[in-house]
Amino acid sequence: MGSRLGFEIKAKDIGARVGVLEVGDKLIETPALMPVVSPKREVISPKELREEFKVSALMTNAYILLRDEELREVVLDKGVHKLLGFDGVVATDSGSFQLMQYGNVLTSNKEIIGFQNSIGSDIGSFLDIPSMPDAFKARAEEQLDLTLDRAREARGEADFIVNAGIQGSSYLDLRARAAKEVGKDFRLCAVGGIVGIMEAYRFPELVDIIATVKKNIPLNRVVHAFGLGHPMVFSLAAALGCDLFDSAAYALYARDGRYLTPMGTLHLDDLSYLPCCCPACSRYGLELKELEGVERTRELARHNLYVSFAELARVKQAIYSGSLWNLLSVRLRSHPRLLSAIKSLSEHGSWLSTLDRITGKASFYHLGPEAEYRTEVFNARERIGRVDSSRRVRMPPFGDVPVELSSIYPFVSYMAPDGVGVEEIYAQVRDIDRLRAMMDYQFGSGASSLIPKRVRIKNSRRTGRMRWVYLDGELIASLRASDNWIIPKEKLALSLHEKFPRPLLRVSVDDEAKPFVEEGKSVFCKFVVEIDVNLRCMDEVLVVDREDKLIRVGTLHLSPGEVMEYDRGMAVRVR
Amino acid sequence: MGSRLGFEIKAKDIGARVGVLEVGDKLIETPALMPVVSPKREVISPKELREEFKVSALMTNAYILLRDEELREVVLDKGVHKLLGFDGVVATDSGSFQLMQYGNVLTSNKEIIGFQNSIGSDIGSFLDIPSMPDAFKARAEEQLDLTLDRAREARGEADFIVNAGIQGSSYLDLRARAAKEVGKDFRLCAVGGIVGIMEAYRFPELVDIIATVKKNIPLNRVVHAFGLGHPMVFSLAAALGCDLFDSAAYALYARDGRYLTPMGTLHLDDLSYLPCCCPACSRYGLELKELEGVERTRELARHNLYVSFAELARVKQAIYSGSLWNLLSVRLRSHPRLLSAIKSLSEHGSWLSTLDRITGKASFYHLGPEAEYRTEVFNARERIGRVDSSRRVRMPPFGDVPVELSSIYPFVSYMAPDGVGVEEIYAQVRDIDRLRAMMDYQFGSGASSLIPKRVRIKNSRRTGRMRWVYLDGELIASLRASDNWIIPKEKLALSLHEKFPRPLLRVSVDDEAKPFVEEGKSVFCKFVVEIDVNLRCMDEVLVVDREDKLIRVGTLHLSPGEVMEYDRGMAVRVR
Repeated sequence: MGSRLGFEIKAKDIGARVGVLEVGDKLIETPALMPVVSPKREVISPKELREEFKVSALMTNAYILLRDEELREVVLDKGVHKLLGFDGVVATDSGSFQLMQYGNVLTSNKEIIGFQNSIGSDIGSFLDIPSMPDAFKARAEEQLDLTLDRAREARGEADFIVNAGIQGSSYLDLRARAAKEVGKDFRLCAVGGIVGIMEAYRFPELVDIIATVKKNIPLNRVVHAFGLGHPMVFSLAAALGCDLFDSAAYALYARDGRYLTPMGTLHLDDLSYLPCCCPACSRYGLELKELEGVERTRELARHNLYVSFAELARVKQAIYSGSLWNLLSVRLRSHPRLLSAIKSLSEHGSWLSTLDRITGKASFYHLGPEAEYRTEVFNARERIGRVDSSRRVRMPPFGDVPVELSSIYPFVSYMAPDGVGVEEIYAQVRDIDRLRAMMDYQFGSGASSLIPKRVRIKNSRRTGRMRWVYLDGELIASLRASDNWIIPKEKLALSLHEKFPRPLLRVSVDDEAKPFVEEGKSVFCKFVVEIDVNLRCMDEVLVVDREDKLIRVGTLHLSPGEVMEYDRGMAVRVR
Repeated sequence: MGSRLGFEIKAKDIGARVGVLEVGDKLIETPALMPVVSPKREVISPKELREEFKVSALMTNAYILLRDEELREVVLDKGVHKLLGFDGVVATDSGSFQLMQYGNVLTSNKEIIGFQNSIGSDIGSFLDIPSMPDAFKARAEEQLDLTLDRAREARGEADFIVNAGIQGSSYLDLRARAAKEVGKDFRLCAVGGIVGIMEAYRFPELVDIIATVKKNIPLNRVVHAFGLGHPMVFSLAAALGCDLFDSAAYALYARDGRYLTPMGTLHLDDLSYLPCCCPACSRYGLELKELEGVERTRELARHNLYVSFAELARVKQAIYSGSLWNLLSVRLRSHPRLLSAIKSLSEHGSWLSTLDRITGKASFYHLGPEAEYRTEVFNARERIGRVDSSRRVRMPPFGDVPVELSSIYPFVSYMAPDGVGVEEIYAQVRDIDRLRAMMDYQFGSGASSLIPKRVRIKNSRRTGRMRWVYLDGELIASLRASDNWIIPKEKLALSLHEKFPRPLLRVSVDDEAKPFVEEGKSVFCKFVVEIDVNLRCMDEVLVVDREDKLIRVGTLHLSPGEVMEYDRGMAVRVR
């Protein structure tokens, strides 16, 4: 395989991640949207994509370049970057789409791979065969076998990063098999053959397909939702862990007068008002409808891109602030068929909850029955089981929550239409009882015993809430203002270390990393030798050496699975 | 009272209306958002508001102009339009806000009215007293009495259109009394003293206050939700029938670094991405955060205005297309407190359903328990009661719907996460049975008997659905493709006229209008002498003369209540 691909996670929420993707020496922030530029029918120039839309990666079609005599000459001579006038990442498609549309293509896998090598694609594709949704299973299987052969061929031949197509039609067993095989060899995996499913609004199946692929490839694989370009689906696909999207839709829809919004597609001709304030809509207003031909397509395409990138920013912001579920509750209501994806989400909830972070700053909005399947709820319910309490308060969807937990995330952030008077409850509970319950919740049953009666709890002057915990004059813990999470100091860490046997609460690091960690440097994934799988991203963890000697305390920044499967990026931010 | 105010409805959905407001010789399309321009701390110039934001009406504060010696001189000399450099509608506030903020003001009702006369306000206010939410009732009552005295004073003194404040704190009985008194005399009514309620996210109460006011004033009154400037509430307030909003928020929030979105307020400093593509956000990107002082406030204010106007356009588009409930299901999920307004909405549902239209083109999205309270559901359930059928299909929230109705709006437009196979059901029912059930549904029990067995039904070649109904070779009805609504021709109209006694299905017009209607001209409200109150906007109606002679058939364009209370605008579009 060709150029180097690196991928590091910067922020997480549900299964989603904001990451930095290194393609050779070029960087892309993910989730990223790659606009598709048609080599023969360019609607918005790569220059404008770069300058106006800050696009760092785009897609084009190698098959079209190969089949057009004139273009082929030029691109072989100048390379695809010069042809397009774009110095960012250029991903090329192999003609698979044409294969699906027209049943055959006039190239071979070997030829199209060689061609992509020659034109300098940063990312390229082998000639995978997208099976139609609901294809006969035997046919889908046959096509998958051929696809996997071609994948193997690509492994040896491609000088580019292979955007490795995972096919299998609507058959989840085929998808799983494809994912296992492809995921083994390729670091960039493309969920292919999903356009038809999306266009038919078969969102529950879309969720099942993406989740099946994700579950069967290593967590450090970058995932491209191939052909997914409608902003109404970005939040859902990102939540499932898709990192790359591509949009031919912005231009194709524009040609048909279709006007994208994050809540669905409208027809320009049906509009009496433009429900948008992008530069195109602000400039033209309803006169957008009066434009003709190329100009109309162009301006409508610009609108489509503006709203697509704005939605992507919204999704990324939600990942950063931990409010992606809140956004999903809104977006799923763009259409009943999208809302019906909840059922599928619920089936993958327990898997997703291992990826989600355990705490955050964002409010928890209870906005409908889907709250039942929120990953926070899976995780919180499990941890509530660690806490012994005789006084409970009903907080749907969490169930009956020990009142002592009312001040810790997610309960402290809980907001429901039928409000629960958390402040009132807070006043009824002694600080020490609260602290002990929170210890059990955060670290495990029995952690409460590490807080003896004689601790002195100091409260915030401003909020009246617990902030510092002293034992025999020594600060043993502080509580973070944003989520009331307990941050153990050395003494408490030692007690936790003693109380809970290996591997619980622990991230064990290699000797090589030990001196750096001792100095307070972050723990990087590649130096982690063992981790407690019950931990969750954003948990406070004990960093230990191979002999289980406590080195430092820190905050886990990935899920345990990711820590073990990533060879780069930070695992624990050490205090 | 001063200049003429005219108001005509162009489109309706739920309690919302798109209208044209005539202020003297100036026109405003409603729902309209009037940005507030502070005479002393202008953030965005009226010129830019006009040119860039297409603002046709703005607000400023007459009290500040009065109290500032320098400004007073200038504005008395040049008038408020020249002072601001704005030739659209200028509405002025009287200092009520200052009164609420500071407890007293240095002017009198008479003085501030006179001053607004002198400076040429198009719309002005008397010195009403906004009671605080949860004020002592006796105090709120006292303040209301004084407000009503001042209203009476304004009636005689004001040369401008009075934006008549309806106060009463959170007491609905006081609000009702105020609305009755104020609504009698003034054509522009302002729901006042609601800013505190909104800022505390007390949305259920906001709904109750607005609904109480609306129920107690004539339907032809223009309603200003005073101080309501956050786009997250526009759809809700519009659905309840508010026509005017004003926003000081765009500038005030900008000063604090608050970034408006239709889903709530964000803090610019918290953002890692700008979830927006307005010209300000597109131009600056995250550098918006680096701007300082006046420039930062200005650009943030521009963003706030762009998203506010885009949301207003979204609301107006939803009214036009009849999808306001779908939008509400999304917007109410911006925050759990907003979602809690559903309960209040449900209590006003039966009232709202008299205002809503009975059919439309938009899909009916079932997106959550709020669907139960949708006005379409109130109306449809009532009409389902007219239909006799032994075969029913479950369509929550409508309940058990006669299968024969599966092809008429709203059932034909019904979309739920758990899909109902309407197409399948359609195939099982004979056209004649369907047609008869639809007759009962649309016109009343027994209308089915007007379709004898010998009718010939012609179906669309394209869709296979019923399109034309012939009796003895004569076309007696057609079915509209968009909603399968029955459009009766003369023969069927005569049968309906015979079958259903006066005033059922009828709009009776004055003799003066009769010759015009005979020619096929629209029926205007002022010529309607009687109307069947069971009709709904968009129903097919019989237009009759005073002697109940059938003149023509047509489509009702307002609710019966509106038809009787409006003296302008179209009531029935005659075929």
